[in-house]
Amino acid sequence: MQSARELFSRSGYESASVDDICREAGISKGAFYHHFPSKQSVFMDLLNEWLSGVDQGLELLRSGQSDASQGLIHMADILPEILRTAEGRMPIFLEFWSYASRDPKLWKSATAPFERYREYFANILAGMEPAEAADPQAKENAALAMMSLAIGLLVMGVIDPKAADWGSAGRESMRMLLAGMKGKTEK
Amino acid sequence: MQSARELFSRSGYESASVDDICREAGISKGAFYHHFPSKQSVFMDLLNEWLSGVDQGLELLRSGQSDASQGLIHMADILPEILRTAEGRMPIFLEFWSYASRDPKLWKSATAPFERYREYFANILAGMEPAEAADPQAKENAALAMMSLAIGLLVMGVIDPKAADWGSAGRESMRMLLAGMKGKTEK
Repeated sequence: MQSARELFSRSGYESASVDDICREAGISKGAFYHHFPSKQSVFMDLLNEWLSGVDQGLELLRSGQSDASQGLIHMADILPEILRTAEGRMPIFLEFWSYASRDPKLWKSATAPFERYREYFANILAGMEPAEAADPQAKENAALAMMSLAIGLLVMGVIDPKAADWGSAGRESMRMLLAGMKGKTEK
Repeated sequence: MQSARELFSRSGYESASVDDICREAGISKGAFYHHFPSKQSVFMDLLNEWLSGVDQGLELLRSGQSDASQGLIHMADILPEILRTAEGRMPIFLEFWSYASRDPKLWKSATAPFERYREYFANILAGMEPAEAADPQAKENAALAMMSLAIGLLVMGVIDPKAADWGSAGRESMRMLLAGMKGKTEK
């Protein structure tokens, strides 16, 4: 996987072949196909490995906060870290998604994490204390809005990492959404 | 430009050469370079032509609304139309941005529309009636949040056009952000 990651960064996703990955890793093609059904699956494993680091970071930021709202607001602190680790990977991600957009099955697994994060936000909102709660429809809307906001902040942050303090922009946006969801001012 | 657009959709951005575009359009290379300095510039012109249609649509939706907040909420109605016209173009956009991400100058012009739309939201918020107004910092935060939200909703909508009513998701998100920005409930 490390060899594949290095090769993808160096030559791009499409130009790197399974042969190249095997040569870089010093393994046989038989050994490769023992572990991975295809080049796509190596990429998906690399993506999922990266996302599980993101998940751990989110849980760390959330834990130790006084309530669900504070947890959600502080989860935005992961943005600068994601932007830091995304740097240099963006051409590969874009190339992979461009490639995946021409293959419906691959597109489905490459985009599954988006739906998973929307559910993650929905579950946190659903578990809010009654005192903090809004109606279920407002929570569904808010989960979708939070997911969209997170994607949009990442896209903007990748385009221009220095244009804003992205962690603070994320916290303020989350605060506004939560206040709007509950129909009251959030401190 | 029409020939270039058809060729980009058919063969992809990178495989389509200036020679191919000239053959498709039935023009000489001299005629091509009289109008466009490069293949990139044809793509940027196509992108800007599409965006000026988006701008006109946004202004139409905004005009005729009773106040700035209602205007912003109704601008979300453009999302289904953008998703409809984006269908089929997404592989080309992703391929172009992937290509542009390896060329700092091209990256800058390809991503300039993002900053332009953030300013567009900021100007609408800045022009709000005093009765609707929040403090300037909250407006700056809200403009960034609105821009992020718009990008994120488009990304989610492209990934799964049928997962939600994207126009309604946009309106509800915008309503929550505006209510949160002002620290009061928005009807």
